[in-house]
Amino acid sequence: MSETIFTYGSPHLKYGTGAVTELGHDATTLGARSAAVVSDPGVAAAGIVTPVVEALETSGLRVDVFTDSHVEPTDASLEEATAWARQHGPWDVIVAVGGGSSIDTAKAINLMTTNDGELMDYVNAPVGGGANPTKPLVPLIAVPTTTGTGSESTTICVLDVLEQNVKTGISHPALRPRMAVIDPDLTISQPAGVTAASGMDILCHALESYTAKPYTEFARKKAEERVPYCGANPISDMWSREAVRLLAGSFRTAVQSGHDAEARGAMALAATFAGMGFGNAGVHLPHANAYPIAGMVRDFRPDGYDADHAMVPHGMAVALTAPAAFALLYPANPERHHEMAALLEPGTSVSDLGRDALPNALRRLMRDIGFPNGLAAVGYSDADLARLVEGTMKQQRLLATAPVEITEADVERVLRESMTLW
Amino acid sequence: MSETIFTYGSPHLKYGTGAVTELGHDATTLGARSAAVVSDPGVAAAGIVTPVVEALETSGLRVDVFTDSHVEPTDASLEEATAWARQHGPWDVIVAVGGGSSIDTAKAINLMTTNDGELMDYVNAPVGGGANPTKPLVPLIAVPTTTGTGSESTTICVLDVLEQNVKTGISHPALRPRMAVIDPDLTISQPAGVTAASGMDILCHALESYTAKPYTEFARKKAEERVPYCGANPISDMWSREAVRLLAGSFRTAVQSGHDAEARGAMALAATFAGMGFGNAGVHLPHANAYPIAGMVRDFRPDGYDADHAMVPHGMAVALTAPAAFALLYPANPERHHEMAALLEPGTSVSDLGRDALPNALRRLMRDIGFPNGLAAVGYSDADLARLVEGTMKQQRLLATAPVEITEADVERVLRESMTLW
Repeated sequence: MSETIFTYGSPHLKYGTGAVTELGHDATTLGARSAAVVSDPGVAAAGIVTPVVEALETSGLRVDVFTDSHVEPTDASLEEATAWARQHGPWDVIVAVGGGSSIDTAKAINLMTTNDGELMDYVNAPVGGGANPTKPLVPLIAVPTTTGTGSESTTICVLDVLEQNVKTGISHPALRPRMAVIDPDLTISQPAGVTAASGMDILCHALESYTAKPYTEFARKKAEERVPYCGANPISDMWSREAVRLLAGSFRTAVQSGHDAEARGAMALAATFAGMGFGNAGVHLPHANAYPIAGMVRDFRPDGYDADHAMVPHGMAVALTAPAAFALLYPANPERHHEMAALLEPGTSVSDLGRDALPNALRRLMRDIGFPNGLAAVGYSDADLARLVEGTMKQQRLLATAPVEITEADVERVLRESMTLW
Repeated sequence: MSETIFTYGSPHLKYGTGAVTELGHDATTLGARSAAVVSDPGVAAAGIVTPVVEALETSGLRVDVFTDSHVEPTDASLEEATAWARQHGPWDVIVAVGGGSSIDTAKAINLMTTNDGELMDYVNAPVGGGANPTKPLVPLIAVPTTTGTGSESTTICVLDVLEQNVKTGISHPALRPRMAVIDPDLTISQPAGVTAASGMDILCHALESYTAKPYTEFARKKAEERVPYCGANPISDMWSREAVRLLAGSFRTAVQSGHDAEARGAMALAATFAGMGFGNAGVHLPHANAYPIAGMVRDFRPDGYDADHAMVPHGMAVALTAPAAFALLYPANPERHHEMAALLEPGTSVSDLGRDALPNALRRLMRDIGFPNGLAAVGYSDADLARLVEGTMKQQRLLATAPVEITEADVERVLRESMTLW
């Protein structure tokens, strides 16, 4: 019997210039008298943490501050955060300020200060124990400073488990932030390279959600088997379309003119909209490919990131295989691929549509925003294909959301075609 | 200084055939061991309460049942409900099963079993004391059985205060249901007249939200001054457009062929979408007019309702003045009125657009679904205009959401033009 039900959850939102100054009021409305502020060194250095702490303290909250979130959290970094939190917490509310890494670290801190056991107990099986929290978490307020990740809308904390050399997550509805505070001014200082990579992440969230397997094509689940990611559905479709429409009008401008407040505002909104979509539908092949592409990096260092180590930013790792992935998946639902191509390039005429319309629109966009020209440009060659394929195939949770079954041969073809994009 | 911030809140949703059978699981996931089921005699007689109670009891919850919600709640009916609830409660969760009346009664029960004081303490000033709850409410799960009201998405409990002969409400973010469970099968038995009136309510929710004063045109509020209804904004706009798109494809069919599951499903979804929109943007002139039109009814009895008293159903009271109201408000934003006319009648050509496009589309729709031909057909004449105008002008909370200032002369003109629609 096929599925008849879909679910939808989202944080409450406060959006707009100055929203961050109201955090103290928002926290006290939740009944909070104490708060942990969770951030990372870069965000702290940019001066964004101090006003958040002041807004909370002005409203009478006792505040502890953690600014050591690791960019791309690992089990080790989350265990350090947990040790700090169990020493200083618990708190009535947790406020995450930063990109996906800070928000995900805050989710882990929330879980580990309200529930017993060790971090690995809660990590998805088979990597971890796959346990569910047994006690309620406290409200988490997410203040994203990097447009893109959508972590403010989702139920997952992504981490690298170092010993097993695998990226996985902790996933539970209780991890979803209670509230997201989106102040587009916080992203004005974001470098062009970061805007480009995180913008492609937003776009792929929307495109993958919209082309995901429809919820009605899954087998009927029991109530206790439902997961937050339930496939494409009328609500995630709406958010995804609107996110792409917003990006089409703002993305190139936001990269080229970072101080364009209107473009920044539209990008911040698009990030949230796409998060509301994929946070309920799910993502698939490009995101599955991103795990080994980011994980096996050798010496690539992207513009705009001052990381002290080689990295392929998440949004870049996702987007580089997106043209080939959407060409592969086109036959599953040509109409949806056409719709997205037309939203992304509003001038598209009907005669331009077809299998290559969306992939070519993505290639033109990536070239315009200064992306590297394919996997080869970030350090991979055909000699890496076997290991990359292996890494992608481990992401069965994501691949299950693809509209058709994905084989090793499919993945290899997509990766091979992604070595050079134009 | 003008407003830069908007807010957005919504219940979590579970949508689809069979959703209601999972209520026990959903309640226990919220940590509940006891529940009140709140409904009304009509819904109970239709056999919809029993399976809800069984679903909860099967999951081990202790359940108390209240099926005496009054259609169109009054202070007296809510005080009776409160007396019952304070005798039998409190509970860990409250499950409302029915139309807006049952859901609003459940909101009052939730408030009055978790907070001290009397009902009138919490009713909007100046009718009541305008107090805010000081203690947290328990989660409310709304199971709408009548498409339309959107109460499952909103923060308000509407009631008639009998002694003052005025319709008002209790409004606070804490009243918003935590979860809405939308099972379109529950609406299959809804009579055509009820589908017609509640469908027009849905449509007016979407049209009024979309044409509401934009949030950026209000004065800048302090954090503690924010209200759930913040004017038209990018998120409410999106829900409103999508609700109208869904209605355009399903409304006439759902009225004419009540057992058309696809049309019923689309209507149930449209009701929810419109609720997500107006629950954050607000409604204005047609809804303000509806209060005196419903409140001053003499002897009109609508098809499809087996009420034991004269009534103008809420959706009908709203919609009868909508054509004239939108003609009045057209100059504030012609483009938005054109967009809505084109969504409602997808064949609309550009040459058909203009001030009368949306009003005429509404007239055609109301005639097709068997609506009475204007205020005269539900018992009003020009002799009633002065009192009707007075009743509308009392709804300043709603009129403040209109895109322009509304004068008594405006209201009189709209009401006069609404006496006969075609």
